Amino acid sequence: MLGGLALSALVAPGAKAATLLKPLAVDAWTQTPGAPVLDHPYGLPSPHESNVVRRTARAWPMPGAASSLTPLADLHGALTPNGLVYERHHAGVPDIDPDRHQLVMHGLVREPKRFTMDDLLRLPSESRVHFLECSGNTASEWKGPSGLPVQLTHGLLSCCEWTGVRLSTVIEAAGGLVAGDEGKRPRWLLAEGADAAAMTRSLPLDRVLDLALVVYAQNGERLRPENGYPLRLLVPGFEGNTNVKWLRRLKVVDAPLETREETSKYTGLLPDGRARQFVFEMDAKSVITRPSPGHSLTVHGYYPIVGLAWSGRGTIRQVEVSTDGGRTWQTAQLDGPARDRALTRFHAGWVWNGEPAAILSRATDSTGYVQPTREALVQARGLNSYYHYNGIQQWRIGADGSVKNA
Amino acid sequence: MLGGLALSALVAPGAKAATLLKPLAVDAWTQTPGAPVLDHPYGLPSPHESNVVRRTARAWPMPGAASSLTPLADLHGALTPNGLVYERHHAGVPDIDPDRHQLVMHGLVREPKRFTMDDLLRLPSESRVHFLECSGNTASEWKGPSGLPVQLTHGLLSCCEWTGVRLSTVIEAAGGLVAGDEGKRPRWLLAEGADAAAMTRSLPLDRVLDLALVVYAQNGERLRPENGYPLRLLVPGFEGNTNVKWLRRLKVVDAPLETREETSKYTGLLPDGRARQFVFEMDAKSVITRPSPGHSLTVHGYYPIVGLAWSGRGTIRQVEVSTDGGRTWQTAQLDGPARDRALTRFHAGWVWNGEPAAILSRATDSTGYVQPTREALVQARGLNSYYHYNGIQQWRIGADGSVKNA
Repeated sequence: MLGGLALSALVAPGAKAATLLKPLAVDAWTQTPGAPVLDHPYGLPSPHESNVVRRTARAWPMPGAASSLTPLADLHGALTPNGLVYERHHAGVPDIDPDRHQLVMHGLVREPKRFTMDDLLRLPSESRVHFLECSGNTASEWKGPSGLPVQLTHGLLSCCEWTGVRLSTVIEAAGGLVAGDEGKRPRWLLAEGADAAAMTRSLPLDRVLDLALVVYAQNGERLRPENGYPLRLLVPGFEGNTNVKWLRRLKVVDAPLETREETSKYTGLLPDGRARQFVFEMDAKSVITRPSPGHSLTVHGYYPIVGLAWSGRGTIRQVEVSTDGGRTWQTAQLDGPARDRALTRFHAGWVWNGEPAAILSRATDSTGYVQPTREALVQARGLNSYYHYNGIQQWRIGADGSVKNA
Repeated sequence: MLGGLALSALVAPGAKAATLLKPLAVDAWTQTPGAPVLDHPYGLPSPHESNVVRRTARAWPMPGAASSLTPLADLHGALTPNGLVYERHHAGVPDIDPDRHQLVMHGLVREPKRFTMDDLLRLPSESRVHFLECSGNTASEWKGPSGLPVQLTHGLLSCCEWTGVRLSTVIEAAGGLVAGDEGKRPRWLLAEGADAAAMTRSLPLDRVLDLALVVYAQNGERLRPENGYPLRLLVPGFEGNTNVKWLRRLKVVDAPLETREETSKYTGLLPDGRARQFVFEMDAKSVITRPSPGHSLTVHGYYPIVGLAWSGRGTIRQVEVSTDGGRTWQTAQLDGPARDRALTRFHAGWVWNGEPAAILSRATDSTGYVQPTREALVQARGLNSYYHYNGIQQWRIGADGSVKNA
């Protein structure tokens, strides 16, 4: 039983016992041996899934700037396969020789060091599952429903198991922090990439010291080129651009460096003209991925409503789902154990009776923060903001079973 | 500090502060914008990782029979990326049209049903991380060290997040089990594949009802062709071949059907001539993946010893590591939360002083079962056994830093 319904009532009309008197067809693929194993030493998805690919939502005016988005509507579970992890590049994807690549750890450390990849692999490591989200994700919805499908509204979002060395271990391997007036002047960390943009960010060291990883592997294998091969920074819960890819340099400093990427970009313009700068954590957010625009409801009856929830400040405590535009809510089931700063899959049962509906989800995280409506966000931050949009997302179901972002 | 060692002492000689007076080289990849994003709508590993592929260990005498093994020595964390999940086929890899594929649920159920893939996607689903291991994994070591590297000794082993419908839900959607004399005659489940081998196994229903999943997705995306696209059975902890791929039929019966795959294969011949049949759970096992044969130790000093442990009967409670051939043991650290019937990564610190050494690992699972030595296994099961080898694995380190299975 699920939501008071016998599951046997949930299967499409026509699937009756009588049809079983006719045996299943023996298809061509059962009559002839299939492809041999040596065709694919590194495997790829079925050709029948060729529509499940990353897509670009926009052209960027700057050379080398680009992005591509994860096809959330066609994914399952909490993890993103490496081939579909979203991308955001400031100067394209460099082809780095791992035998030449080095990481420098310097600044206010006792014994500044260079690490080869082999050196890093000989340090203690750990693996953790965390999401990554671009701070510009869902910016399309600031001014109201964009009409776009979930891949293009929310697809600057992925979740992987990351393996690497804890930032605090790398600093310890460089002799530890130089003793100083930390009490008065908090330390910051400069992270620099080896791409042609030399992507550079400043991070508050005390907030990332035990959380951040210097990462060389993703979902079990070495990083993909477009995700930072051979080395990247991973700062769980922080906006994507701070997770510097192709990492070549970490420097401990005593103040943020006001780099190009934290002055010309990645700030939020408030209605009164002030800017929100150094807003790092991604706020709690959720979205229904199935059904979502592009899907269609083909029969009247039971549908699971499934989606993803996440928070840059901890775990997901609760997800609520509404099918009547937010008038009433039901608590969704969460899949698996609560994971810190990771995507969490939610499920809720729904019987579609064929009438128009409006489905939406609302996340609450372990700090008690509740995902806001778009109206509340606009009231707080105005309409000049671009980054850190986390409003409740609604999809409209038509009487014809269509699903629209309207 | 790790194992009483200052990490700053662990980095290779030469990585001194003085070398930092010379700035890092600005390599070609930093001087020129990299590749654009549209080159790879579905991404692939770096060309520098082209050696990290599945490999075959043997040629099979039967047409269509084949296997390939996961490159464990080069992987990290607990998950196996889909492109590297091991394979074992009895008649090659079929190319199945998902729009035509159906699953029949029949036998001792009240309302036998056919399910299209769309029907299955409209049933409640869940995602869980579980390992898969071929029952023939590590058979190479029954008669003593084979000399093979870990990919070829232990690589019929992978671990993924699987998404699908619980077996009990599929049975419920077919009206539930026919009432009968269950108390006297336990139910069995026949699972049949749509490949040209029509791979078929019988499973004890009461042991798998709430554990098994009818799976359509793996690590977030739809199953790969070689892993059962579009549908497979997943029986956590059970030997790999029972996790029937390309699943087309489930039939509830009142006795095992003694199929070809459970009489001519997948039994164990004991010294007294009796056969162990229907041995399903994979026993607790572990192996060191780094360092392992093919790696070499390049400096005297600290090395992390990392590996994998798993049990088909529950979680991993403890892993112990020895570096002196099993005379003394230290308890390894386990990575992340204990996961039921999933690979668990373990870590132990070791300082290599340049002398020959013998490194090995030993797992204990949540039932209290301890991984046995090869000698104990041979004593219990003789040397005519092929399947279910789970002996402690030793690698020998030479004074030259070489690592051998000897």
